[in-house]
Amino acid sequence: MSFSRSAIFAAVSFYRFARQCKTVAPYVLGTAATLTYFYTHNPVRQHHAAVLDDFLLKPSFLNTDVSDTYPNKPLESFMAEPITDKQILQKNAPNSYQARMEIFILKLQKQFCQSLEHFEVEQNSNSRFLIDRWTREDGHGGGITCVLQDGEVFEKAGVNISVVHGKLPVQAIEQMRARGHQFTARNVPLDFFVAGISSVIHPRNPHVPTIHFNYRYFEVTDVDGKVHWCGTDLTPYYLNENDCKHFHSALKKSCDKYDLSFYPKYKKWCDDYFNISYRSNERRGIGGIFFDDFNDAKQEDCFNFVKSCANTVIPSYIPVVQNNYQRTYTAQERDWQLLRRGRYAEFNLVLDRGTKFGFQTPGARIESILMSLPPLAKWKYGLDLKEDSPEMKLMKVLKQPKEWV
Amino acid sequence: MSFSRSAIFAAVSFYRFARQCKTVAPYVLGTAATLTYFYTHNPVRQHHAAVLDDFLLKPSFLNTDVSDTYPNKPLESFMAEPITDKQILQKNAPNSYQARMEIFILKLQKQFCQSLEHFEVEQNSNSRFLIDRWTREDGHGGGITCVLQDGEVFEKAGVNISVVHGKLPVQAIEQMRARGHQFTARNVPLDFFVAGISSVIHPRNPHVPTIHFNYRYFEVTDVDGKVHWCGTDLTPYYLNENDCKHFHSALKKSCDKYDLSFYPKYKKWCDDYFNISYRSNERRGIGGIFFDDFNDAKQEDCFNFVKSCANTVIPSYIPVVQNNYQRTYTAQERDWQLLRRGRYAEFNLVLDRGTKFGFQTPGARIESILMSLPPLAKWKYGLDLKEDSPEMKLMKVLKQPKEWV
Repeated sequence: MSFSRSAIFAAVSFYRFARQCKTVAPYVLGTAATLTYFYTHNPVRQHHAAVLDDFLLKPSFLNTDVSDTYPNKPLESFMAEPITDKQILQKNAPNSYQARMEIFILKLQKQFCQSLEHFEVEQNSNSRFLIDRWTREDGHGGGITCVLQDGEVFEKAGVNISVVHGKLPVQAIEQMRARGHQFTARNVPLDFFVAGISSVIHPRNPHVPTIHFNYRYFEVTDVDGKVHWCGTDLTPYYLNENDCKHFHSALKKSCDKYDLSFYPKYKKWCDDYFNISYRSNERRGIGGIFFDDFNDAKQEDCFNFVKSCANTVIPSYIPVVQNNYQRTYTAQERDWQLLRRGRYAEFNLVLDRGTKFGFQTPGARIESILMSLPPLAKWKYGLDLKEDSPEMKLMKVLKQPKEWV
Repeated sequence: MSFSRSAIFAAVSFYRFARQCKTVAPYVLGTAATLTYFYTHNPVRQHHAAVLDDFLLKPSFLNTDVSDTYPNKPLESFMAEPITDKQILQKNAPNSYQARMEIFILKLQKQFCQSLEHFEVEQNSNSRFLIDRWTREDGHGGGITCVLQDGEVFEKAGVNISVVHGKLPVQAIEQMRARGHQFTARNVPLDFFVAGISSVIHPRNPHVPTIHFNYRYFEVTDVDGKVHWCGTDLTPYYLNENDCKHFHSALKKSCDKYDLSFYPKYKKWCDDYFNISYRSNERRGIGGIFFDDFNDAKQEDCFNFVKSCANTVIPSYIPVVQNNYQRTYTAQERDWQLLRRGRYAEFNLVLDRGTKFGFQTPGARIESILMSLPPLAKWKYGLDLKEDSPEMKLMKVLKQPKEWV
């Protein structure tokens, strides 16, 4: 899988790069080595080439075939100490989904933070992830919140994991029952466990899209209440169709390995979910995949599917950042980005189920939940877009989602 | 009443001005003429004096003893054509609360917009109120949305009125019943009428507070379902205690004329309402007065009380703008203003009942409802305030509201 991802990335990057250089035909495939050679010898885009070259020389920045096995070097593999005691985590790893999920998200958090920080290093910026490891006051778990602010490339990047357990209130159980879950227990709280990773990245350059993803494992002990709530979606400010295709292709590939019906179903669900209904059904971005209460197949299959989707975050997004973060932009483009971020804030505050759940949960760490809010956002009354403008081009897709693959 | 308001304003302004000049003892009262003379001959604050002088020479800018009688010159008294047909409005004015309220809010909108625009004129800025008169697609009323954007003094100022009628859904009736309203009708929609004015002002200078107010008359025809939902509150970014005292004093005076229990009761209600509960009970500002379902006294008394509160907006706020809008400020102070505006956006999107009601109402004009959102706002993860900073001074009052009068 790792090789195939690299190969896809190499192919897509090569195609896009080739298009930019206009010197070679698109769709020509090459090995990583060939690409490296080609890039480093192209004087026009020396810097861009050097960065890509660096990626290719260090495939770890794109390879997130993160496993769920306890690492040999935990200090190097996690951003901070796990939430669960290390010895217990290591001991339970082979036969507990709780432990496997915690290890998986710890590793993915590290990999993603590294991939993002890499851009700051390249730009000689001093911005690095701030690591906040926190525990709940009631002792029922905690999390690791990693936030990079005021970077050269990322104005605000948040990558959170949390591992929480406790008693699920009767009301929440009834809500799940209403969605079709079967519980034997009636009117008693049930033990629950939830481990998840969530992230929102707000780049500085309006030509780099914002990404959000959220992969969560939720277990209720009564009966088979093991479900996943997940999704990845992209929010561009200007529409680069190749980026959209690359992003959706990566997600589709990840879905298709498990079930050909998954991608179309979860792509539509995503378009329906990230919909600012009261703004005349304006989506917040170009979507991706979204699903919740995912519990259809055998648990091992479910888990592997979710891991596969989560592992797609880096190869689907990092090349898009790479392709755009050095583009110049105008004050008007920056303005539009800030206005779209206003919509992003609206969605998160008004409509997002996860945020609402957080507001209602006593003892929830609001600062971690609301790290998703943009660093800077604008609202303007009576915005008027010109018919043939790039802003309107995006708006049309937001109002009428399209198929990218 | 008009004279007493002017006198209070003159006294308060004089006191504050005297304190700044440190040349005369505080609490010395003088007539407007005396003040004018004093101001215009003080070379230190020539410009400030000139503006205040202008106010005193044109008392209309502070006098909002707006009446509910149909004006002789409607074109000069309203921002746009009334929502109800002019002839009908004029005919009904003497004996209909619906008509009286519509006339009242039309006049108040005009007066408040004029008061604000005056500052832009003084600053030689070209920003003026944009006037959007709109009607509902179903023909059941409409509104006049006035927004001034990108001004020198006001970054965004919105002053809306709306006059809407129709059938109140059963669900909404049941919600009112749950709050104690008695309706004879069961399980049938009832005719309703609502007329209101709402406004949010976001000044550019962080030393000028944001004000919000909302005065609304709501009538359900079944039984005596005539209620008012109202409030005025101030959101400073830096705490100027004299401004807070002036603001609350004006509101208290307006309440005390009707019932001495009103101010303490509605002041507490305001502190409780504008509370961002999930942010460790951080209030969005220093409060004011808030009440809903106000239906205690005779209808004429209720109506007069609400008019009196609404008429206090200009004398309570405009002098505060006047006192601060020319102060210099640092980038750090601007930053803090933007961060507080982030909280303002949060409150409006997550907690405000009016906004939520708008989101749920089919055909609601969202652009008018969300004109309350700040022009620019910031969010920062893990904000750390220094113990003795002016920012912390405000924060302490937001966490622990105090009595200002």
